[in-house]
Amino acid sequence: MRVTQTFLPTLRQAPKEAEARSHVYMLRAGLIRSLAAGLYTFLPLGQRALQKVERVIREEMDRAGALEVRMPSLQPQALWKRSGRWETMGPELMRLQDHSEREFVLGPGHEEVIADLLARGLVSYRDLPKCFYQIQTRFRDEIRPRFGVIQAKEFLMKDAYSFDGDEEGLERSYQVMMEAYRRIFERCGIRVLPVQADPGWTGGGGSHAFIAPMPAGEAEIVYCEETGFAANREICPCLSPPNDSSRVGKTTAPYEKVATPGMSTVEQVCKFLKVESRRLIKTLIFVADQEPFAVLVRGDREVNELKVRRYLGKPVQLAPPEVIERVTGAPVGFAGPVGLKGVRILADPEVMLVGDGVTGANEGDAHLIHIVPGRDFDEPELADLRLAVEGDPCPTGKPGKLRLERGTEVGRVGKLGTRYSEAFGAVYTDDKGERRPLVMGGYGINLSRTLAAAIEQNSDERGILWPASLAPYDVHVLPLGVRQPFILDAAERITLELEQAGFEVLLDDRDESPGVKFNDADLLGLPLRVIIGKRSLDEDRVEVARRERPGEKRKVRVDEVCRSLKQDFQDGRVVCLSEAGMLRAAPVQSEGKPSQSKERTPSS
Amino acid sequence: MRVTQTFLPTLRQAPKEAEARSHVYMLRAGLIRSLAAGLYTFLPLGQRALQKVERVIREEMDRAGALEVRMPSLQPQALWKRSGRWETMGPELMRLQDHSEREFVLGPGHEEVIADLLARGLVSYRDLPKCFYQIQTRFRDEIRPRFGVIQAKEFLMKDAYSFDGDEEGLERSYQVMMEAYRRIFERCGIRVLPVQADPGWTGGGGSHAFIAPMPAGEAEIVYCEETGFAANREICPCLSPPNDSSRVGKTTAPYEKVATPGMSTVEQVCKFLKVESRRLIKTLIFVADQEPFAVLVRGDREVNELKVRRYLGKPVQLAPPEVIERVTGAPVGFAGPVGLKGVRILADPEVMLVGDGVTGANEGDAHLIHIVPGRDFDEPELADLRLAVEGDPCPTGKPGKLRLERGTEVGRVGKLGTRYSEAFGAVYTDDKGERRPLVMGGYGINLSRTLAAAIEQNSDERGILWPASLAPYDVHVLPLGVRQPFILDAAERITLELEQAGFEVLLDDRDESPGVKFNDADLLGLPLRVIIGKRSLDEDRVEVARRERPGEKRKVRVDEVCRSLKQDFQDGRVVCLSEAGMLRAAPVQSEGKPSQSKERTPSS
Repeated sequence: MRVTQTFLPTLRQAPKEAEARSHVYMLRAGLIRSLAAGLYTFLPLGQRALQKVERVIREEMDRAGALEVRMPSLQPQALWKRSGRWETMGPELMRLQDHSEREFVLGPGHEEVIADLLARGLVSYRDLPKCFYQIQTRFRDEIRPRFGVIQAKEFLMKDAYSFDGDEEGLERSYQVMMEAYRRIFERCGIRVLPVQADPGWTGGGGSHAFIAPMPAGEAEIVYCEETGFAANREICPCLSPPNDSSRVGKTTAPYEKVATPGMSTVEQVCKFLKVESRRLIKTLIFVADQEPFAVLVRGDREVNELKVRRYLGKPVQLAPPEVIERVTGAPVGFAGPVGLKGVRILADPEVMLVGDGVTGANEGDAHLIHIVPGRDFDEPELADLRLAVEGDPCPTGKPGKLRLERGTEVGRVGKLGTRYSEAFGAVYTDDKGERRPLVMGGYGINLSRTLAAAIEQNSDERGILWPASLAPYDVHVLPLGVRQPFILDAAERITLELEQAGFEVLLDDRDESPGVKFNDADLLGLPLRVIIGKRSLDEDRVEVARRERPGEKRKVRVDEVCRSLKQDFQDGRVVCLSEAGMLRAAPVQSEGKPSQSKERTPSS
Repeated sequence: MRVTQTFLPTLRQAPKEAEARSHVYMLRAGLIRSLAAGLYTFLPLGQRALQKVERVIREEMDRAGALEVRMPSLQPQALWKRSGRWETMGPELMRLQDHSEREFVLGPGHEEVIADLLARGLVSYRDLPKCFYQIQTRFRDEIRPRFGVIQAKEFLMKDAYSFDGDEEGLERSYQVMMEAYRRIFERCGIRVLPVQADPGWTGGGGSHAFIAPMPAGEAEIVYCEETGFAANREICPCLSPPNDSSRVGKTTAPYEKVATPGMSTVEQVCKFLKVESRRLIKTLIFVADQEPFAVLVRGDREVNELKVRRYLGKPVQLAPPEVIERVTGAPVGFAGPVGLKGVRILADPEVMLVGDGVTGANEGDAHLIHIVPGRDFDEPELADLRLAVEGDPCPTGKPGKLRLERGTEVGRVGKLGTRYSEAFGAVYTDDKGERRPLVMGGYGINLSRTLAAAIEQNSDERGILWPASLAPYDVHVLPLGVRQPFILDAAERITLELEQAGFEVLLDDRDESPGVKFNDADLLGLPLRVIIGKRSLDEDRVEVARRERPGEKRKVRVDEVCRSLKQDFQDGRVVCLSEAGMLRAAPVQSEGKPSQSKERTPSS
């Protein structure tokens, strides 16, 4: 393909709003353009790369025995009422009405649709296991779209659903998918951490998220190198602290009230009273079922809302200011457990180890000091309610400390159990002729995010370093000085020869300076390049280089270019995709890429 | 693929609501299942066939030089306000709001998105022509979903947009696409008529619809075998009739009022008064801009609303009963031009040739007889306002009569001109450095409908007769008596050998009777079949047959099966798809299929 014939609008500068490196490079290299917040057009080279992600996934799903289907995006409300998700789904669910005001959703998942489908077939134990998958556009009413296609309103998604006769069958299907996922991300050149995750809105049993570590990610994970533990930060348990090491201060003095005019944040109070933040007892007022309650954590900790929700078994939210004022008798920022009447109080166990604490006085512009929990207020209900932090002990109980990392969730697998099959009557006949509910698993991959993660993890300060499996083209042919016909002719002959050998080739036939061409080639980052200049061509030679080491050029005779590049591929320095239109199942083999540093990948 | 490993729930009977043959067979052969009205899941074999349509289209788009992109389905209202389509689109447009009540549409087209994209690039005349395409899910708030995937709420669509510097360039791009479309439908085994069409809601200049003739179609077309004229029925002009042949009756008697108690339809009045329907002057009251007006046509004709709308240059609709009563002073069914005051009256020219007519008396339960237009009421504004019918003279003016046929619109091409590029500022720099608006074309294919049309046109009373280009598999291997291990073994060996030779094979390994297997094989309709029974296997032979002529079996030695089937493909009796994963560009070559009867295809 000639650059002048495709559409490749590269940019010197990305728009200011692009924060993530992948977002910057996808815009600058002409892979995507923004239509509106969270909505992107994939331009020809971006679409080629996205289709390669799609091809890797399709091959691995087929290899795992999954059957490709295509289910409607538009799903009637009745299905979602039946599963109960109409009520429990958050604001991200896209809802709409048709002309006769019937309600529909743009399905964020197809658990209902496929359970309903299987309910109408007569499935016997002989037909099991079965696994179905599809690749299609998804919609999400993203409250805060950011990081380009990583957190978008519309993206490409693969989802799959397995059906087994019992839990053991589900476990086998789950492991087959885990293995397929590992292969997919390895082939895409992405380092992922499979971490324990909250099953979230899909419900059901165990769940793992595949997190690609990168600075621009919506997800936070914690992991322990010593024990191999890894989890989404929000579900990571915090061990009840061993008494001695977690004690903070000690006093026998009675508590007293001090003036803290306008000091309503932890930081302000600590600075004003000259105490460490871990001596504060932070008191947050929440509401569940319109009933206010308080949660206490140490001043240096954050309340983990998911843990509170799970502990109470219902949705919770921070109370609005008027409720806080009614409950505490004070403006926001001065709540405390002492004298707090008529509301349930929960506390993280760490709070009880504060021996000389500070807390709000339930009165404007005042705090209490020398607070001793258990002495100055009764021991509240204790539960693990705080958010894990870097340096926490590993929750396995084995020696080790947690590390915190940001990343993006590229995939998710979950055991759904019989929740949907029971709701929809999706049963099978077992070997004794009895009807039993099918046991389901659900498996997703966000393809748009996978592509962005591959770029995020495989790039340098000059541009993208494509894993060969996803590169829009394999080889960039760069004729320098196309106004000289013999240079362009040579470039065209070499391009044709490479294409006939099965390479996908981009020929930069623009009338641009070498500097512009090299900059764009670095930005676009195709794995191999062939540089055709007058001087070397006079010696019947061209220069061949790899994107990763553009300085290491080698001179190759014109009639040897094809053989030489093939050698690169065969030696595994880069991996060929396109021979006979078939993708080779092989991991990226180049040195120094994050995808190779396996030693950092904890098993889950 | 083994039948027991895929998911192929065939049915003996289709649900009653399935009217169209393609709908019946797609349900019965286990290609699709209905989720709700107008919403279908493509099961594994249906998805395979749909993907083959996709592959044919992608190959022909690439061959035509179009560049694949992926644009958002979700489009902000602002874009549609800018093009003016927010107001003009009908109720089929799916509209929705996000969490902050911003309005979006689920784009039925991407004219706005791509014009907006091109407005941001700096395109020069050297970059032209450019053509972009995408294949993605479309949504339509279909008022009356029917015929299965033919008239559905969600379907797979290819759309493409060309950009040129002037009208001549657009004409070239348009012809390239017309040719690509002809190749696509030929390769899919579909007979299509390219007919002149209303540009409709996309706006712009000329437009052609590709209609696949079939009884279950939403479209009506007229064509003339003698002249080659073909058009959508609704845009077909009706020639002003030659005076003599179209005169209907003659009278010198004055008109008189007769009682027609309760006779408000043409049929009732004609029967009661014993007159031919073409002597009636039908008077319909419409409303445009809240202003009522009357349209007269002969009693045997229908008013063509599109023509009325175009004549007036604004949207029109039938008046509600209360408006009719106010305007005519009579209940619905008794309107007439005599004495009709205060409203504009339009008439089709044929009306003036009624020499002895009948019309409503603008009074309940009464009609007027012996009406002579021009004598008893003034000549109204005359314009071509009626719907063309079978037998009308060809509108080219050359000798020939129109024929009427139903069909489904599988594709559409249209000249959009500068409507969108001017609205969005999509300009290019010409060779003199001046900015000029890009000249656009738009090109769509409904893939779901294309698949249904291929089935509709290629089937018999027993089931589908797949065009080899779209068949979910090439070969059906039918072992009879799988409990005998040597029969199943032989079937598996043959399957493997065929797969290694590049055939896509479905092995019916179910423990079912020969009758069930043959019925399902006829229903599913794969082009070739290999029958493996005890008797022939004892002679080291199997039977090979084609779906089209299941009676014409030939005995083939087991080690010759692969060579023999290859010969079938090479001879063009069926066309191979899957060799080395590449689709061969070849038309269906079997005899007697509608796709071969080229002589009926008029050029447009």
